[in-house]
Amino acid sequence: MKTLIKNVHILSMDDYFSEVKDGFVMIEDDLITEMGHVSELVSVTIQADKVIDGKKGLLIPGLINTHTHAGMIPFRSLGDDVPDRLRRFLFPLEQHMTKELVRASSDYAIAEMLLSGVTTFCDMYYFEDEVAKSCKEMGIRALVGETIIDMPTCDSPKPSGGYEYCETFLEKWQNDPLVTPIIAPHAPNTNNLEMLEKIVALSEKYNAPITMHVSEMTYEIEEFQEKYNQTPIEFLQTLGYFERNFILAHCILTTENDLDIIAASNGKARVAHCIGANTKSAKGIAPVKQMLEKNIVVGLGTDGPSSGNTLDLFSQMRLFANMHKTHNQDRALFPAKEIVRLATIGGAETLGLADQVGSIEIGKKADLTLIETESVNMFPIFDPYAAIVYSANASNVEAVWVNGQQLVSEKKMLKQELNKIKETLYREMKNFVLEAKKLS
Amino acid sequence: MKTLIKNVHILSMDDYFSEVKDGFVMIEDDLITEMGHVSELVSVTIQADKVIDGKKGLLIPGLINTHTHAGMIPFRSLGDDVPDRLRRFLFPLEQHMTKELVRASSDYAIAEMLLSGVTTFCDMYYFEDEVAKSCKEMGIRALVGETIIDMPTCDSPKPSGGYEYCETFLEKWQNDPLVTPIIAPHAPNTNNLEMLEKIVALSEKYNAPITMHVSEMTYEIEEFQEKYNQTPIEFLQTLGYFERNFILAHCILTTENDLDIIAASNGKARVAHCIGANTKSAKGIAPVKQMLEKNIVVGLGTDGPSSGNTLDLFSQMRLFANMHKTHNQDRALFPAKEIVRLATIGGAETLGLADQVGSIEIGKKADLTLIETESVNMFPIFDPYAAIVYSANASNVEAVWVNGQQLVSEKKMLKQELNKIKETLYREMKNFVLEAKKLS
Repeated sequence: MKTLIKNVHILSMDDYFSEVKDGFVMIEDDLITEMGHVSELVSVTIQADKVIDGKKGLLIPGLINTHTHAGMIPFRSLGDDVPDRLRRFLFPLEQHMTKELVRASSDYAIAEMLLSGVTTFCDMYYFEDEVAKSCKEMGIRALVGETIIDMPTCDSPKPSGGYEYCETFLEKWQNDPLVTPIIAPHAPNTNNLEMLEKIVALSEKYNAPITMHVSEMTYEIEEFQEKYNQTPIEFLQTLGYFERNFILAHCILTTENDLDIIAASNGKARVAHCIGANTKSAKGIAPVKQMLEKNIVVGLGTDGPSSGNTLDLFSQMRLFANMHKTHNQDRALFPAKEIVRLATIGGAETLGLADQVGSIEIGKKADLTLIETESVNMFPIFDPYAAIVYSANASNVEAVWVNGQQLVSEKKMLKQELNKIKETLYREMKNFVLEAKKLS
Repeated sequence: MKTLIKNVHILSMDDYFSEVKDGFVMIEDDLITEMGHVSELVSVTIQADKVIDGKKGLLIPGLINTHTHAGMIPFRSLGDDVPDRLRRFLFPLEQHMTKELVRASSDYAIAEMLLSGVTTFCDMYYFEDEVAKSCKEMGIRALVGETIIDMPTCDSPKPSGGYEYCETFLEKWQNDPLVTPIIAPHAPNTNNLEMLEKIVALSEKYNAPITMHVSEMTYEIEEFQEKYNQTPIEFLQTLGYFERNFILAHCILTTENDLDIIAASNGKARVAHCIGANTKSAKGIAPVKQMLEKNIVVGLGTDGPSSGNTLDLFSQMRLFANMHKTHNQDRALFPAKEIVRLATIGGAETLGLADQVGSIEIGKKADLTLIETESVNMFPIFDPYAAIVYSANASNVEAVWVNGQQLVSEKKMLKQELNKIKETLYREMKNFVLEAKKLS
């Protein structure tokens, strides 16, 4: 099966930021096999089974969401402006999450991501086997990790039950073309020392990436300072985390030495930066400028729907620009093209998938997002990167391909109906909503 | 003509934040004449000429954009990340603005605002008679002010030519139901003392509001410090500006005394806060928390399409939340409902129109925005204000009424075709684009 996408402005996001203004891309099965200027197209057209007219839209690599919790759609718009929402709403309500609810939520979250041009995401939550199944069903690419936390959870009556869940999960999902099973300890301060050590060993045994919330909370920092006279990152280093394939979410409250530790891992440790969630909760602004100066790999993440609210990266790119420019008092810092880089190939590097996705190049997986330029907010376009960062929103996504398969066309999902997914989620949420109302 | 809008969740934005969950609103000519719960509807329905099913959407007062430059659509995405863009791109290219181009740009900008739920805006630029005509043609409500600046401009070969333009303009547009003519000196540092004094007198003569960029630029602050040992706001006070109806755009670099001066005007002076433009350009974060503590009236503005890029207030509300919470290190500060307040009735107060618009109340003008809740980003909704601030984007606007007239239905304009407006703008932009490319 060969699909030709033509009449698009290609932003390849390769090492040279190569662009083709009147471009085409040929997809064969799961791969990008040809690309170039329309003038070279005559011979190519003949061989295509399907031809898509991109109508002068912007064709970019599928956006990559490096940190989220797909199971948490039920929490959206609940207690957004409440201090200590984690302990007041999230932990109590998570007891009422069921396997069915996580599955329904994941289907919905993935629909939202696909419709906003996200083609790969990194997830951590509970009942992650359901999330993985949802990825397969919906056709999206993902790193999927069961949360390990030192308390009873919705999918384990005993503390740290996620560890056993995780081992079974890692076995089950080895070598899947779309789902990479990973290990997701909740945070350094919500797991005991023994468990944190076991997790490193588990990661070694299965050669599995680890993702964890790190240096996000002031009380987390204070606890490690008191107990060990160390930062969480210094502590994790002593346990061997920085010799593993390690995706650190947040890293807001980091020291110069913390950044040096991450940098010294030579790309083994990478940062999932969630500017929207971090600043909505007034936690602060992670030092991304300094990270990039030290050649630390950084990608963008939305965090869960209860923290970042929407799962699209357009909101994150816009917030990233304004936040970091103002924080560093430098308008020229992070020009739009650098921000689009973080949301695409930067995200792929963060998730360890840069050999497969993150840029439009021959031989890479065909994970593609087409942004239409017909809507009122998308004219004129002197700089397509600026249009993406400062003007576009999730609703400008016209079409999406993952692994060569077209999943979104004309702003609608092709394989599933959003209404049906929503009805199922609504039905599964009934008890959750009753419990939520008790807390409000 | 009576229109009934039913099956909506009304966020009235009145003094009590009154809400009606299964609500209806009756529009008669230009006014809201009845509103309430659907259960009271039986007798009302009979009298309506037209019935609109709001499909459980959120009905809010039309959003109010307190500061923009509708003529500047041609500049969008041009030099966004370039330091001193004002002198490098804006001033040189403004010489190539024509009457026809301003008109085409205004039509386009107003289309963009209407489609994103903005029903009133405050404008300052050149050829403002064209902007006013565009408002009438498109059906939007606006304060429209010709820019006065101490240099030759596209609509005046001699410096400060805007002053004369303005006087004619004020005469012409007195008592229009939609357009309020105002005076728009560019900034305290770009007008000479004599002209600044003449503007106060002109405002008195016509009882016309003044809007001006104030305390936006570091060099503006430095210049007044050096010349007068005063802040721009202290200087303007000596000229009598704070006894006029005065809308100050930006007010980023303000002192405690500046805020006291604004507060002491007892509502004569109000602030148009443009968080997106101010932070994209790394100018800083205006002290809105302190302003509100001093009972200063504040509204939200997008600034022009070259500074704020899009003209919708959803982007501004989201940026406002994250910026001010983080800046003040307080997650609970500015809960979502306070932010929606700033974008509606706060904006109406800022423009001096709160007796007419800004809230859904019987007797007020029927300026209304219906936000659909069917799109993927709008579920679930525990808190409708949070859904508007943290989840919604411009594309969720389903329908819009201004002065009782429905202008947007099913996300499309009813009176004009966007494509035609775009074609005209594209045609008028040809020379501008050539000049822009020379500078890039």
